[in-house]
Amino acid sequence: MKTNETLAKLHAIDRECNYLEKALAVLRWDQETYLPELGVEDRSEQLALLEGIAHKRLTSPETGRLLGELGSVPENPRGDESLPEPERDFLKVLRRNYDRAVKLPPDFVAAAAKAEGLSQACWVQAKKNNDFAAFLPHLEAMIGISRKRADYWGYKDKPYDGLLDIYEPGMSSDSISAVFGPLGERLSALLGKIAAKPRPDTSFLECGFDTGVQASFNKELMKRLGFDTRRGRLDVSAHPFTTTLGADDVRITTRYLRDNPLSAIFSTIHECGHAFYELAFSAGLRGSCLADGASMGIHESQSRLWENVIGRSRPFWEGFFPLLKSYFPEQLKSVGIDPFYHAVNQARPSLIRVEADEVSYSLHIILRFELEKALFSGSLKAADLPGQWRRRMKEILGVEPETDAEGVLQDVHWSMGSFGYFPSYALGNLYGLQFFRTLKADLPHFEEDAAKGDFSALHSWLADTIYVWGRRLDPPDLLKKVTGQSLSADPFLHYIESKYADIYGI
Amino acid sequence: MKTNETLAKLHAIDRECNYLEKALAVLRWDQETYLPELGVEDRSEQLALLEGIAHKRLTSPETGRLLGELGSVPENPRGDESLPEPERDFLKVLRRNYDRAVKLPPDFVAAAAKAEGLSQACWVQAKKNNDFAAFLPHLEAMIGISRKRADYWGYKDKPYDGLLDIYEPGMSSDSISAVFGPLGERLSALLGKIAAKPRPDTSFLECGFDTGVQASFNKELMKRLGFDTRRGRLDVSAHPFTTTLGADDVRITTRYLRDNPLSAIFSTIHECGHAFYELAFSAGLRGSCLADGASMGIHESQSRLWENVIGRSRPFWEGFFPLLKSYFPEQLKSVGIDPFYHAVNQARPSLIRVEADEVSYSLHIILRFELEKALFSGSLKAADLPGQWRRRMKEILGVEPETDAEGVLQDVHWSMGSFGYFPSYALGNLYGLQFFRTLKADLPHFEEDAAKGDFSALHSWLADTIYVWGRRLDPPDLLKKVTGQSLSADPFLHYIESKYADIYGI
Repeated sequence: MKTNETLAKLHAIDRECNYLEKALAVLRWDQETYLPELGVEDRSEQLALLEGIAHKRLTSPETGRLLGELGSVPENPRGDESLPEPERDFLKVLRRNYDRAVKLPPDFVAAAAKAEGLSQACWVQAKKNNDFAAFLPHLEAMIGISRKRADYWGYKDKPYDGLLDIYEPGMSSDSISAVFGPLGERLSALLGKIAAKPRPDTSFLECGFDTGVQASFNKELMKRLGFDTRRGRLDVSAHPFTTTLGADDVRITTRYLRDNPLSAIFSTIHECGHAFYELAFSAGLRGSCLADGASMGIHESQSRLWENVIGRSRPFWEGFFPLLKSYFPEQLKSVGIDPFYHAVNQARPSLIRVEADEVSYSLHIILRFELEKALFSGSLKAADLPGQWRRRMKEILGVEPETDAEGVLQDVHWSMGSFGYFPSYALGNLYGLQFFRTLKADLPHFEEDAAKGDFSALHSWLADTIYVWGRRLDPPDLLKKVTGQSLSADPFLHYIESKYADIYGI
Repeated sequence: MKTNETLAKLHAIDRECNYLEKALAVLRWDQETYLPELGVEDRSEQLALLEGIAHKRLTSPETGRLLGELGSVPENPRGDESLPEPERDFLKVLRRNYDRAVKLPPDFVAAAAKAEGLSQACWVQAKKNNDFAAFLPHLEAMIGISRKRADYWGYKDKPYDGLLDIYEPGMSSDSISAVFGPLGERLSALLGKIAAKPRPDTSFLECGFDTGVQASFNKELMKRLGFDTRRGRLDVSAHPFTTTLGADDVRITTRYLRDNPLSAIFSTIHECGHAFYELAFSAGLRGSCLADGASMGIHESQSRLWENVIGRSRPFWEGFFPLLKSYFPEQLKSVGIDPFYHAVNQARPSLIRVEADEVSYSLHIILRFELEKALFSGSLKAADLPGQWRRRMKEILGVEPETDAEGVLQDVHWSMGSFGYFPSYALGNLYGLQFFRTLKADLPHFEEDAAKGDFSALHSWLADTIYVWGRRLDPPDLLKKVTGQSLSADPFLHYIESKYADIYGI
């Protein structure tokens, strides 16, 4: 009786935190899509105020006391064994969020937020001016702050593990290194073989695709993929993203390039993958801290499964190419499915991560993971990053940036102190193909369905197998539950090597 | 020293309340423009939570204590005479907001909010089904709740005065009656004379105006009126409105009708009038409860000044008609400025307030004001509203609705318990023309400027004379300050009678 009351109180606190987070998401979504230029000053104040209120709500001593009453303590976050499993998972996640928040002293949080703001503003300029030296002091400050954060939170082995744990709970620097090593070698080798082959002609992509028509096509596409537009929408922003504004309100964005219609198409499919995951929490997990992806990497497994494994497959375009042609009859008049499929899957080493193809993408991540590990182990100094970047870029990808702007300065993450985030992107590729192996065994008609544009069985499988867990399971446990395996690069490597052998005739 | 500290604390509380109100405005704006259909459930929860937080912040005992320390009490809201005038005005408005909020018991507020939700939902159906009987119990409940609210707040003479005071501080049922009486008689007479004249041919408005082109024109129009689009935007919603999301972020909406381009044009001009007022508070009054219009009616004076006095004037269209023609060359090919000016100013009695012309609009308001007064004095029962509505509609406007849907059920206000709101609309017409009389004396070249599309002198005059006061002065004081007069219908009657004598050759 007392237990039920305590649980009800914790769920009420959690629900309030959730609504506050969603209100914050509305303000942030608006900032990225429709906020007038000069509205940003007041918006920052509104965000800071609401973030403070949300933080206060979560970290009230009441939360800690109630968690303790149910036996949830840092050493045993899941609480009393007599509780039902879903409630124990709830306690685990709430305890984790609570601990993360209370362990950071308010002064440190405020100073870090201020330093991050300055650092990011400096990075924008430094990237524009190709001036790593100007950014260096901020980068050093960000590393210092992140190290301190890891210290406050605690970690098993290395400080970097404490940071990884934010994005991939249950993963460690060592467990990731163990798979990234062979992954890097085999992808580099594959890329080398592809580079020796002739490049496909993709000039038809550059003949002017009206952005208004692209918007219509992408809206049609998201619906056909199964996005219920009564529960979300597609808008335009500088960088595509997905955000959850409510249990039945998940919004995605894209951007339209006149001379590259594929950019919007694959960002739409990618963000749909994130959105399908988020939209699935409206039933059993609604309004709770469990209504979230298992991790950044698991989330990315969903977006990359849709974008790459499904969206860049031949059956998919057998179904969708006629539709695309109906939107752009002039531009695609004389283009057949073969050259289009090749264009969608062209691979070559390049300098910029966000423009990388399916083969080289993970190599960009491996480079960053290596550098982050070295920065936090102390074997690499921030000042030596640009040189090390160029050296390893050449070794891993076979290309070398001429400027830091298209090298070490290209990504926003480090400027915000988000160390430990990058690995999730490549882990998403690995998780995704591990899941896909089980999926194909369970759904033998998957490819025929995709060619018909019928994704209903796929949606059901994902819902029943992955989405249903929300944030209840950490990535290693979810992997085990779904695939029976632990983290492995094999399914991804098998998939990518056979796909590209086929495309490039290797 | 102590005084300065206390003031600083009150300003900090006020600023937080302001940011919370603006965050709420973001959530509400999104609900009216872009919220996916099924997102409404969570959005209601988010709004309720944030409203509760904002209410708690304002009504904390600390606020009352700090106000008291500065001598601000209900009988002397402006506090110690030794304080600077702007601070005394600040104390007045904060004390008023605080008292209004603390005087209502939380249980009553919660019950009222719930009843209003149910009532509004019932009204939507009742209007659709022309079923006043179904709505009657809710209407009676709304009257009861409003009466109770007035009792909690207190009032000098009549309960209805207590409600009017929310929208028009300093105005009373008697002071409004004194001007609405003669206003109604002379407008009815004018409308009778107009009805005897032939109606202008306005068929050219119905020949298909592409809504995308209308959107482009309206965006151009708002810029030319002087709207800095770095500080706001124009979107689409079911009912046009203006809302302030930040000191430099004021958003307006409109709707586009294919067979009536004037609808969007005049709603854009109207909302621009509101927006110019709101945008003016960013400097001296930024983030304060004084950064607001003096009242609903004063706000409406600004929108109606722009929409009617400026936007429906001949000089204005001498400037803008060529621009409109350039957007719709086919549709307006053979239309001259004369028939267009007549179309913009056609007047005839009609049933629906929101579609009423400049002459009959105030008569719709006078009808509602009469009925509200009678409901709250007890001389009219809610059940007798439909009959009384028809009778008085016939007497005042010369037309009689066949159904309650286009009669007593047409407006949303009563279903939400917003009694006392309607008079502001007609007061806006009166205030506006009182201001305009001073304005024309100060700006003798006003009409030539309007014809040139140059509104810079007008913007400066409004900023220096009206906007600068924000909410510091109550409507009677602002009127006196700007015009030297108290409330009067004469300037409006003089304006409307001479304008329509000219147009219809009366």
